Amino acid sequence: MDRKKLEELTSPNAANAKKLMLLGSGELGKEIVIEAKRLGFSTVAVDRYQGAPAQQVADKSYTGLMTNAGFLRSIVEKEKPDCIIPEIEAINLDLLFDLEKEGFNVIPNAKATHTTMQRERIRKVIAEDAGVKTSKYAYAESLDELKEACEKVGYSCWVKAMMSSSGHGSAFVKGPEDIEKAYKIATEEGRVKGARIIVEEHVDFDIEVTELAVRHFNEDGKIVTSFPKPVGHYQIDGDYHSSWQPAEVSELAEKRIYEAAGKITGALGGLGLFGCELFVKGDEVYANECSPRPHDTGMVTFVTHQLGFTQAGLHVRAITGLPVPAIEEDGFRKIPALTPGASHVISCPSEGYDAMLGNVFNATNELGVSLLFFGKPEAHVGRRMGVVLATANKVENAKKKAERVAHKIEMQTRQVAEWKKQQLKEKHIL
Amino acid sequence: MDRKKLEELTSPNAANAKKLMLLGSGELGKEIVIEAKRLGFSTVAVDRYQGAPAQQVADKSYTGLMTNAGFLRSIVEKEKPDCIIPEIEAINLDLLFDLEKEGFNVIPNAKATHTTMQRERIRKVIAEDAGVKTSKYAYAESLDELKEACEKVGYSCWVKAMMSSSGHGSAFVKGPEDIEKAYKIATEEGRVKGARIIVEEHVDFDIEVTELAVRHFNEDGKIVTSFPKPVGHYQIDGDYHSSWQPAEVSELAEKRIYEAAGKITGALGGLGLFGCELFVKGDEVYANECSPRPHDTGMVTFVTHQLGFTQAGLHVRAITGLPVPAIEEDGFRKIPALTPGASHVISCPSEGYDAMLGNVFNATNELGVSLLFFGKPEAHVGRRMGVVLATANKVENAKKKAERVAHKIEMQTRQVAEWKKQQLKEKHIL
Repeated sequence: MDRKKLEELTSPNAANAKKLMLLGSGELGKEIVIEAKRLGFSTVAVDRYQGAPAQQVADKSYTGLMTNAGFLRSIVEKEKPDCIIPEIEAINLDLLFDLEKEGFNVIPNAKATHTTMQRERIRKVIAEDAGVKTSKYAYAESLDELKEACEKVGYSCWVKAMMSSSGHGSAFVKGPEDIEKAYKIATEEGRVKGARIIVEEHVDFDIEVTELAVRHFNEDGKIVTSFPKPVGHYQIDGDYHSSWQPAEVSELAEKRIYEAAGKITGALGGLGLFGCELFVKGDEVYANECSPRPHDTGMVTFVTHQLGFTQAGLHVRAITGLPVPAIEEDGFRKIPALTPGASHVISCPSEGYDAMLGNVFNATNELGVSLLFFGKPEAHVGRRMGVVLATANKVENAKKKAERVAHKIEMQTRQVAEWKKQQLKEKHIL
Repeated sequence: MDRKKLEELTSPNAANAKKLMLLGSGELGKEIVIEAKRLGFSTVAVDRYQGAPAQQVADKSYTGLMTNAGFLRSIVEKEKPDCIIPEIEAINLDLLFDLEKEGFNVIPNAKATHTTMQRERIRKVIAEDAGVKTSKYAYAESLDELKEACEKVGYSCWVKAMMSSSGHGSAFVKGPEDIEKAYKIATEEGRVKGARIIVEEHVDFDIEVTELAVRHFNEDGKIVTSFPKPVGHYQIDGDYHSSWQPAEVSELAEKRIYEAAGKITGALGGLGLFGCELFVKGDEVYANECSPRPHDTGMVTFVTHQLGFTQAGLHVRAITGLPVPAIEEDGFRKIPALTPGASHVISCPSEGYDAMLGNVFNATNELGVSLLFFGKPEAHVGRRMGVVLATANKVENAKKKAERVAHKIEMQTRQVAEWKKQQLKEKHIL
């Protein structure tokens, strides 16, 4: 497509309006819609449940199972979106390939969506196609094969379902005694039951980072890759709990992060922002996985980057052919941030509907503290209902601030009408 | 109302959802809705035309004339909003007073809305109730009285319709020879034809500033006032053209700006963000007018302030009882910015529907340049269709950047299908 035509902005209610369709409409999609609406795009938000965060701000919404090819084809043909933006993995992949063949623009492309949703495929792309170092890994299809694979990779290691998200289907294996339990978790809790399992070496890393690499057009119409500062983060029970930017890594490690993310996203192709997860130990960098879309841990960019250049803004710019200016340095295009910052999840302590946040005044009455309350209708224990975003002169202070504030906020639901704070604190600083 | 109850955040689709209704749904309202949705509020956007900017992101929209008391009462009683937020002045004031008496929460209050929409009333509040210095002024109800008033005030002076906006109904009078023409403009172009006219001394100011003072609850449940850095700006033909933050004023002038804005907003009362317009000459400060809501020139805060603390974020926080943390200094509560920045309007050169922006890539391909395209369905020559927001290390550089970029962007409409740039450049730096 002609880049000049691509980057023309149209009015959202005009016949020639440019339309973005989000498949998956969570909290990341909500900010994508906000950034898209700020540029005049028309937006359609699709999710499996009504009232999903992005649906609350989009022009139009559809609710249904995106694994259902009939449902998905029906709305795509009706809406004729200029970009189809998968935000989640539970999407009918065969249909995405078909739609792409028919000329629809899948972000970044159907193949990358297919590759990244399964660990074996993305490991292969990272290690073989991109030639980037990963931790050791092996595969298994039975308990016996799993025992063998664990021996091969060595202890400690992770046993993971091939398709999973937010830590479901993953188990940490310290030694042979943990294998049976891990097998059960990986086969029963993954998105697809049974089937193949991956064993990954446990890298005793200093820090886990996400590199939000952006593939976008430059002024010559060529696709280039630009790099925000790496985001540091940690997980609790396999789910993102806190993130911060910039990550505390050496200069050399930072360079290697950009190199690795550039190669991996290059192998995946297409336009858009990617969340490349890497482990860093000293100056060494090990790629872990990569999602072809904004990343949970990248929410910190909603305060560290200027309007239009958060991970949501960068994704919208990249896929619609708008510029992503950068500083050229050491052979990399670097996207500068406005300030150091940190994020900390607000994880629900209760089940039920109609979640509320309490003690908000006392909790958030500090300089540099922003709050997102996603407005999901249904709460579960451990479900992410919001996030605290903090800025400070030093990233360390931002981390402490975000953590302190998030743990002061109270929650209740209609069913559990009692104010409670979130519980998980294992990796906390304070 | 109990502040603790007020600051509880609810889910937007719950029966106990807190609802904000915007009367007027322009570009400022769009950002108010975005900030409100980020905190889980339910939003209703009302405007006289369909597809208004804030309607594009709100949960629900109504279209009709807000000067019509029947229409307004009908939707207010149906929606039962927790806050009624006037964004424009063309609202049935009598009804606002009635609604307030019936217990509805008008932001900041019906009286302030009534006072600020008319120059005689706001001048009186500024000069008499708040005791703040203004330029000299006088009133007239006929051409003869106008001649007398101009002599009394002295030349040069401004002749203005009592109710007007965006420079309509205003004329600059250098000497007696300009009076007749000014009379015609003030009586024919103001919002209410004929009637009383105000004559204001022309202050040969160094800089015109907007102080976005915020009245909000503190931790003790008392209303206090906090102050972002003053915004500098200039107008062309009486309409905002470029603004920047911080404004280049002396320390003493800055202190006087906070003092004046504190007194004026104190006299107006209620909760929320106010746009106090002042002239600054050396260390001297003259109050001009004040709007009880976010201000056109305050759009610069969308990039200079952190998410949740832009003028839209501050307004939402203040009216919903959320905290507005500040630095206490020199006896003032000061709200810090993240970075210097500037804004420059994208003013349409053509008439027609379905406006488009072109040359966006080349125009905006600079570091620190954000863009808002409001998506208004109808364009007029001189209508503000978008804004360029720029950040830089120094405010001077941000001003140049915003100006340069805004004048590279091209526009066309369905009716005038020819790319054109905006024209007005009189007060430009470059």
